[in-house]
Amino acid sequence: MGKMQKLKFGLIGGGEGAFIGAVHRLAAELDGEAELVAGCCGSTPERAHAAGIHLYGLTPERAYGSVTQMLAGERARATAERMQFVIVATPNHTHVIIAEAALKHGFPVVCDKPVATDLESARRLAAVVRATGLPLAVTYNYTGYPMVREARALIAGGVLGRVRRVQCEYMQGWLATPAEVDNKQANWRTDPAQAGGSGCFGDIGSHAENLVHFVTGMPIKSLCADLSTFVPGRRLDDDGNVLLRFEGGARGVICASQIAVGEENALSIRVYGERGGLEWRQQEPNSLILRLIDKPIQILRAGGGSLAPITIRSTRLPGGHPEGFLEAFANIYRGFMADVRGEGNFEYPRIEDGVRGMLFLDRVVASSRYGGQWLDMEAVS
Amino acid sequence: MGKMQKLKFGLIGGGEGAFIGAVHRLAAELDGEAELVAGCCGSTPERAHAAGIHLYGLTPERAYGSVTQMLAGERARATAERMQFVIVATPNHTHVIIAEAALKHGFPVVCDKPVATDLESARRLAAVVRATGLPLAVTYNYTGYPMVREARALIAGGVLGRVRRVQCEYMQGWLATPAEVDNKQANWRTDPAQAGGSGCFGDIGSHAENLVHFVTGMPIKSLCADLSTFVPGRRLDDDGNVLLRFEGGARGVICASQIAVGEENALSIRVYGERGGLEWRQQEPNSLILRLIDKPIQILRAGGGSLAPITIRSTRLPGGHPEGFLEAFANIYRGFMADVRGEGNFEYPRIEDGVRGMLFLDRVVASSRYGGQWLDMEAVS
Amino acid sequence: MGKMQKLKFGLIGGGEGAFIGAVHRLAAELDGEAELVAGCCGSTPERAHAAGIHLYGLTPERAYGSVTQMLAGERARATAERMQFVIVATPNHTHVIIAEAALKHGFPVVCDKPVATDLESARRLAAVVRATGLPLAVTYNYTGYPMVREARALIAGGVLGRVRRVQCEYMQGWLATPAEVDNKQANWRTDPAQAGGSGCFGDIGSHAENLVHFVTGMPIKSLCADLSTFVPGRRLDDDGNVLLRFEGGARGVICASQIAVGEENALSIRVYGERGGLEWRQQEPNSLILRLIDKPIQILRAGGGSLAPITIRSTRLPGGHPEGFLEAFANIYRGFMADVRGEGNFEYPRIEDGVRGMLFLDRVVASSRYGGQWLDMEAVS
Amino acid sequence: MGKMQKLKFGLIGGGEGAFIGAVHRLAAELDGEAELVAGCCGSTPERAHAAGIHLYGLTPERAYGSVTQMLAGERARATAERMQFVIVATPNHTHVIIAEAALKHGFPVVCDKPVATDLESARRLAAVVRATGLPLAVTYNYTGYPMVREARALIAGGVLGRVRRVQCEYMQGWLATPAEVDNKQANWRTDPAQAGGSGCFGDIGSHAENLVHFVTGMPIKSLCADLSTFVPGRRLDDDGNVLLRFEGGARGVICASQIAVGEENALSIRVYGERGGLEWRQQEPNSLILRLIDKPIQILRAGGGSLAPITIRSTRLPGGHPEGFLEAFANIYRGFMADVRGEGNFEYPRIEDGVRGMLFLDRVVASSRYGGQWLDMEAVS
Repeated sequence: MGKMQKLKFGLIGGGEGAFIGAVHRLAAELDGEAELVAGCCGSTPERAHAAGIHLYGLTPERAYGSVTQMLAGERARATAERMQFVIVATPNHTHVIIAEAALKHGFPVVCDKPVATDLESARRLAAVVRATGLPLAVTYNYTGYPMVREARALIAGGVLGRVRRVQCEYMQGWLATPAEVDNKQANWRTDPAQAGGSGCFGDIGSHAENLVHFVTGMPIKSLCADLSTFVPGRRLDDDGNVLLRFEGGARGVICASQIAVGEENALSIRVYGERGGLEWRQQEPNSLILRLIDKPIQILRAGGGSLAPITIRSTRLPGGHPEGFLEAFANIYRGFMADVRGEGNFEYPRIEDGVRGMLFLDRVVASSRYGGQWLDMEAVS
Repeated sequence: MGKMQKLKFGLIGGGEGAFIGAVHRLAAELDGEAELVAGCCGSTPERAHAAGIHLYGLTPERAYGSVTQMLAGERARATAERMQFVIVATPNHTHVIIAEAALKHGFPVVCDKPVATDLESARRLAAVVRATGLPLAVTYNYTGYPMVREARALIAGGVLGRVRRVQCEYMQGWLATPAEVDNKQANWRTDPAQAGGSGCFGDIGSHAENLVHFVTGMPIKSLCADLSTFVPGRRLDDDGNVLLRFEGGARGVICASQIAVGEENALSIRVYGERGGLEWRQQEPNSLILRLIDKPIQILRAGGGSLAPITIRSTRLPGGHPEGFLEAFANIYRGFMADVRGEGNFEYPRIEDGVRGMLFLDRVVASSRYGGQWLDMEAVS
Repeated sequence: MGKMQKLKFGLIGGGEGAFIGAVHRLAAELDGEAELVAGCCGSTPERAHAAGIHLYGLTPERAYGSVTQMLAGERARATAERMQFVIVATPNHTHVIIAEAALKHGFPVVCDKPVATDLESARRLAAVVRATGLPLAVTYNYTGYPMVREARALIAGGVLGRVRRVQCEYMQGWLATPAEVDNKQANWRTDPAQAGGSGCFGDIGSHAENLVHFVTGMPIKSLCADLSTFVPGRRLDDDGNVLLRFEGGARGVICASQIAVGEENALSIRVYGERGGLEWRQQEPNSLILRLIDKPIQILRAGGGSLAPITIRSTRLPGGHPEGFLEAFANIYRGFMADVRGEGNFEYPRIEDGVRGMLFLDRVVASSRYGGQWLDMEAVS
Repeated sequence: MGKMQKLKFGLIGGGEGAFIGAVHRLAAELDGEAELVAGCCGSTPERAHAAGIHLYGLTPERAYGSVTQMLAGERARATAERMQFVIVATPNHTHVIIAEAALKHGFPVVCDKPVATDLESARRLAAVVRATGLPLAVTYNYTGYPMVREARALIAGGVLGRVRRVQCEYMQGWLATPAEVDNKQANWRTDPAQAGGSGCFGDIGSHAENLVHFVTGMPIKSLCADLSTFVPGRRLDDDGNVLLRFEGGARGVICASQIAVGEENALSIRVYGERGGLEWRQQEPNSLILRLIDKPIQILRAGGGSLAPITIRSTRLPGGHPEGFLEAFANIYRGFMADVRGEGNFEYPRIEDGVRGMLFLDRVVASSRYGGQWLDMEAVS
């Protein structure tokens, strides 16, 4: 902690009323290894400038009014002062264009998920990432939780045996009524032009897919989706269920809903293999339930003994001192920033996750549109 | 309790090593309103006779060696001595033939689920029930839990508003390995000739369907099923996931597995409507979680205040004195026995539930066999 | 089950509005091994006679109007017909006199706790038990739970190492307001003449003491009690906390309250030894939490694997099929009835538990009356 | 967030292997409103200097070798550069002398609890605080949790009615074996010369007392304590139970243990009043259980609706995004730093809490030493 010079970073998005911009900043700075130095934090020059100064405490000259100005302005600064990476926390439809521009200006990028609103542009972005060789993180932040990483390590280590069954759920209730009328975030998340072809699945179903992939490592072979829109007048799905068939024969289900009244942010995953099963719930993130055949149920705890090295490195406090959402988000930054610094041994979600996530959304939307057809996921190119 | 003459009953099935026969007897007798007087409790005359005497304490002349002898023998007894109903707790493929015979001898029947191994014979049994006018209960026993009945009452009373989303799970792990080798129950439950066209779904998926129907009252319009058999050599499904579309637009999922290692008997249901959601878990059956829009989460408790009359009538003890599986099972008997006695106001699952359950299994198996096609549920005739 | 002739029993107490009489009968009969044949179920001859017939379905000649008539009447019957034990479920102040009379008429007794309203009469009853040599059970029913028995077996087997710390709580809220006005049970439980010197502790604190003793086997050396009466006008304690020092150096706390608003029947025990700790909660009785040093938390489950023989014998159903209060209560009857039949290997609370419980109450009340003095528990004579 | 110039602060303590120093820094900086600029982070000049540079990234000239140098050095700096407050995170016996020196140099102080090792010096420190008029926070950090603040607001608002009963527990297991041999923190916490007259109670019992006071606002009138030392060779208590009598008639219990094997950091509080009860558990800090008479149990959630203003201001994220220990700790800093800046409306624990905490420890130790005598708490002077 604090052993080296802080990394300087910029923030694009996160204007007045945006929840996730502030989260990015808190997470990036949590360990005292980074500091915000520049931003373009609003959709008009005036709002962006004002928010940069008043919400984020930036100096006036680095509270930029446009992305173009920001990238050019930072590029022009002396190396010692210049921002060293940039966060893209804008509505989905602008991710690719901004991320591409940032990469082309030489800046590593942290980009919100989904990385794009269509598969093609996600792949185009991947090409730019490969071409520039710069780090790009996609903030599938739930993979930053220590016990999610423990789950992955247990499965990779063969503790469950061959995986047979996966269940992943992401239940929210905040869109059970037409919240888009007076909630800025609800507004763009339910607008096809800004959010892309999926609402609920683009927002939270994509986290579920990523979590399944991260924990099990198993590619999805085909899927069958049934999306719904329950709130009258809404233009995108607010609920859906997807059956999964994995390469190798395992089966699974992803359920996501934003009309599950009373649910806050109920992401969970359960995996069952030949010899054991495990269960993790985001709202009680410091526990991982492990069920091994013919053994008592075990509750593994963050900060406890006998955990994988990556799990241990992902906690800051002893057991029983709850760590939460921000700490997990900050773990994504830890991995990314280690890469930016050229250190080794880092864990964070990358453009390949972003592209695979877009492929998943593409197939989910198509499957549902065709009445719930089974569709193949092709290999990620 | 104990206010009237005990009803006399007979038991068919429940031989050595059978779990469910003993449960039926305990449940039927729990409230001191019935007593076992006759039985045919084994698959050969010798075993049946011995089990009747030694396992169930029957007198030798009423520890019958065959169903035919039992029905004729009881029919021939004086009214005051004769059994007044009969329990059919045999492997699935014998339910219809035994139940029909019992009804035709004038005996009301309690029959295990599924009532048959195919839809056609279930419908034939329904015709016999209608023709004889005798009570027949199908032991979808989970609908006997007080808080399941409360859930039904809340939804029927409009507390959740129009239902949008239903999730029902039934997870077990006891068939994660090839248990059929040396476990009698596992053996017949995985044998198509005895269990019917479905293993896991016939056994526990059928409970899930019944629970969904009981709680929501909503007919399933169509479904898409993906059944699996994970244990090598097994002849029937041991796992499956089913997407549901209900009449009226609600959507749902039923997940059932018998290879979910470490799960005991994890039946649960969650229902989300326009204004609220509820959640019930069989392994903590005395609580019902209610989430109303913009209100704190509420935990309703069996034995607590402000519950529906049917809920109150379904508990025996004050709150905090846990009631469990047997008590819920006994509640099914309470309703059935009230009907046998000609009293009013009774709640128990009937042949219509049995036929609808078989229709569900028929469609699930067919949908899965065709690769996961959406199939319509026709109206129950 | 049902292998032998049913034991015949009588019930004293359990009149109109009494909860515990019905529980005794359900529990005694649960396994089909006993049947109620006689009773004196009310405090006047008329009420007793009517309740025997209408509440319990007794024949008129065995629905006795007085205890004296009942004991004499049953004594006079032919052996084959006569009741074989008798349940005493009356207010506390009548336990000893009735139990003594029953024993002297040759009937084994099941007696509610506390066995007396003062230590001296409890000891007198113990002398009668010893003199007659007949079985007497005191219904400290919570020791009938399978996982309580598992806890005892684990500690006796040294799994926790030497015990250091014990916490036992029993929280209820039903007397948070002056319920005695219109609730029969609340009325006598708060009346010193009927309940004895303690209200809350006599009723539920005594269960806590017994649970501590049963699970740990450690004698209490001295205690310091602070009882309170919070509801204005109430004549006995409705809340209290007791510090414990055990022989051998362990320490503990018993907290009991009947004014803990919103608590139903929240009995729990936690024990910590040198190498491990365990925790059991009556409202989720099928789980036992085991914490061993440097190991993940384990949840042992009733019906699961690797349990003690006594635990296994105390369950009726496979894991995940919740058993509750009645089944635990019935386990006490199982042990007692095995003793009545002269079989071996039985577990049930006896007069020694009852006397020790009275000694505990005696010291608790005295300690509190003297302002919270530490008092020694002498050895049970 | 980030709206103003960051406050500059220094850290005393938190050398190699110290957990709490890093926590202070993370918490102070969490919201981006403060930054560490100076430190004296070790018990010898060499270690302090090295830790300041390598652990905390300080510049060599502000990685001081002694507290005296640090206070003088910072005092001598230009106002714009100078540290604006100082954190004292050293072993207990040095708190007062360091805090006094800091205050006398004009620096506001954040001091770990307990503020002293004896009551007299705590009172002397209080006099210095009053004389200088500078802010001093005592890090009773658990009062920073949003739902603890909600509990306080509910009780202050009369929702429970008059409080009758309080139970507070703090269970840990990390000292169940002689950890002091090779664990630096365990070492000083079990050394009377450094920790003061109490081990377990000084460390965690003091948090419990503060939590009880914060939530209920009720002064303790008298107490009866029974402390134990279970691990052979240990010089201070590692376990204890305390009975409480409050002004106004309420009763309570505080249990604290560091030998409760398998417990991590199990702090909890339950309060029962005339009309309701509430329950909070540190390891699931985002929920508060509320039980109102004759109503279903309610679970209030951080980030949910209908919470007190102070609760809302104490959360950073929407409901379902778990916040934990660091965020709660940071809330203490928020209040303290608002005071340092001269803003209004702040909540943080002050020297009065520290003195009352020392009085509590003084009485607990004395009561226990005299065999568990009831002792009065005099008014805090």
